[in-house]
Amino acid sequence: MQETPEHPILIDGLEYCKWNRELIENAHTGGLTAIHVTLVYWENTEESFTKIQQWNKLINDNQDLIMHAKKSSQILEAKKKNKIAIIYGFQNSAPIANDIFLVEKFFKEGLRFMQLTYNNQTPLGGGCFESKDSGISRFGKAVIEEMNRLGMIVDLSHAGKQTCLDTIKFSKKPVAISHANPSFFHSSMRNIDNEVLKKLSSKNGFIGLSLYPYHLKNLGDCKVEDFCKMIKELINLIGENNIGIGSDLCLNWPNEVVMWMRNGKWTKKTDYGESKDKNVSWPKQPYWYSKPSDLKNLFHSMIENGIKENQAIKIVGLNWFNFMQNHF
Amino acid sequence: MQETPEHPILIDGLEYCKWNRELIENAHTGGLTAIHVTLVYWENTEESFTKIQQWNKLINDNQDLIMHAKKSSQILEAKKKNKIAIIYGFQNSAPIANDIFLVEKFFKEGLRFMQLTYNNQTPLGGGCFESKDSGISRFGKAVIEEMNRLGMIVDLSHAGKQTCLDTIKFSKKPVAISHANPSFFHSSMRNIDNEVLKKLSSKNGFIGLSLYPYHLKNLGDCKVEDFCKMIKELINLIGENNIGIGSDLCLNWPNEVVMWMRNGKWTKKTDYGESKDKNVSWPKQPYWYSKPSDLKNLFHSMIENGIKENQAIKIVGLNWFNFMQNHF
Repeated sequence: MQETPEHPILIDGLEYCKWNRELIENAHTGGLTAIHVTLVYWENTEESFTKIQQWNKLINDNQDLIMHAKKSSQILEAKKKNKIAIIYGFQNSAPIANDIFLVEKFFKEGLRFMQLTYNNQTPLGGGCFESKDSGISRFGKAVIEEMNRLGMIVDLSHAGKQTCLDTIKFSKKPVAISHANPSFFHSSMRNIDNEVLKKLSSKNGFIGLSLYPYHLKNLGDCKVEDFCKMIKELINLIGENNIGIGSDLCLNWPNEVVMWMRNGKWTKKTDYGESKDKNVSWPKQPYWYSKPSDLKNLFHSMIENGIKENQAIKIVGLNWFNFMQNHF
Repeated sequence: MQETPEHPILIDGLEYCKWNRELIENAHTGGLTAIHVTLVYWENTEESFTKIQQWNKLINDNQDLIMHAKKSSQILEAKKKNKIAIIYGFQNSAPIANDIFLVEKFFKEGLRFMQLTYNNQTPLGGGCFESKDSGISRFGKAVIEEMNRLGMIVDLSHAGKQTCLDTIKFSKKPVAISHANPSFFHSSMRNIDNEVLKKLSSKNGFIGLSLYPYHLKNLGDCKVEDFCKMIKELINLIGENNIGIGSDLCLNWPNEVVMWMRNGKWTKKTDYGESKDKNVSWPKQPYWYSKPSDLKNLFHSMIENGIKENQAIKIVGLNWFNFMQNHF
């Protein structure tokens, strides 16, 4: 696929917004080609099927601007039709509980990304907030095989280091960390150290770079220059083909939702997640990345900051497209 | 409570039978005072509430012989009324999924035992069949605190060694391994090594000795003399107050159920569990322990095999009663 700087494929590898017409219009104006959207975190099986129905309705209600993509070819179709392809994902394996047969049921409903864990341990593996990471469990292996078979992307965001290493080794298909940054840029429990980054990319695994403040150097005050410098360093470390953007934009939600993301129903106390100052509000986004359409602005900033044009084209979308094409 | 050899309190600390009138009558004839019954293994929340309703109906239909015990005092009440006290338990934490608030909901329905894991890893901890045991997770700690608060017994049967050690240390109330044997008697992934046994009993934790063939020396050909010798050795190791019987009797089920216990829905392949020869049938019980009423026969065998009468009285029921009294 030939991409021009005027019309690059723009793919956001993860957003969690309370989508409405206004946000969809913003993404559309910004030229977004595809967005991997998060449907659930802690929801159980039934609640997750309900979320899918709600998303199907949202897409139907806005079908002039968005369409549901179950195959990568539909991303190209969306681009031709001037629509945004929406790709469904779960940020946890809670929806499948202990039931491997649910993987295919959700796949049939269009699920194309699933995280093995969300901060905490699951029956599949260890979370990045656990003091001890089990690595991949017996059920975890069975689920990864099933996801490989179906063409559902294994997402290691929010997983522990051992679970990342085990999965990279075990999975027959390349895996993704859809939204995180290198630890060398900003040290946090959610970011990824060089050992994992190298092993990930050595098996064609993918990292989507995050714009969530807790993953950024200087948090919400992060400068776009520093972000671009990190990209250049990352290219030096793992090459230019396995990097994309997974902005982790969380827009239009009340503050309760950030606390729900952290606490689900797993604790009766209060967990503040990545907020060291116990902030119960959504963190402030960098001014240069505060809405879906800012992906195109980042593309231009990347070039202004010395990233080669062909590399920038890859990173803002073409790489994600190629990676997804390898799965579905 | 004064117990006489003629009428000892007889408590079976775990049975998983497809109960019907005939089995209930057998247990009643055998003088059973209380039985901790397993309701679920892999069932999800909704299915587990349904199982409770089914058990409530079974008890109602046989109320001349059995009654539901939510308090230890009801065990004494049952004995006076010449009924068997039935205590509800789950052999997994699958029913609570990620939701700590479900612990109290199930407690209100009468649940008094819950295992953290069943062979496989759960969000709470590691299973005894996992190659790597995480120990207790963040959610695991929260659930143990909640179980302690309510008076629900933490059951470590089918847990991994690290999860056992972590839980023994973390729990504010003594914990139980309701059905397993010492590894010195028979080495198996389900049995318990001396380190765990000593740490368990040092905090007044409890072990219920199992009659399930895969936990026995020489499996179904185990001799009662050898079983009693093991008890004497165990008394030497951990004293006589923290030992009981958790027979793990699994009666009246078709063969599909043993395979379902092993496989749940967690794998599309076939897992043979503890059967080294890939047996898909229920293993043969020792002839001297093949029905609920055999607990009383074991009591007499214990005395015949050199266990002191007052010790035998404790082990066949009084110890379990005292342990339960400490919780509910």
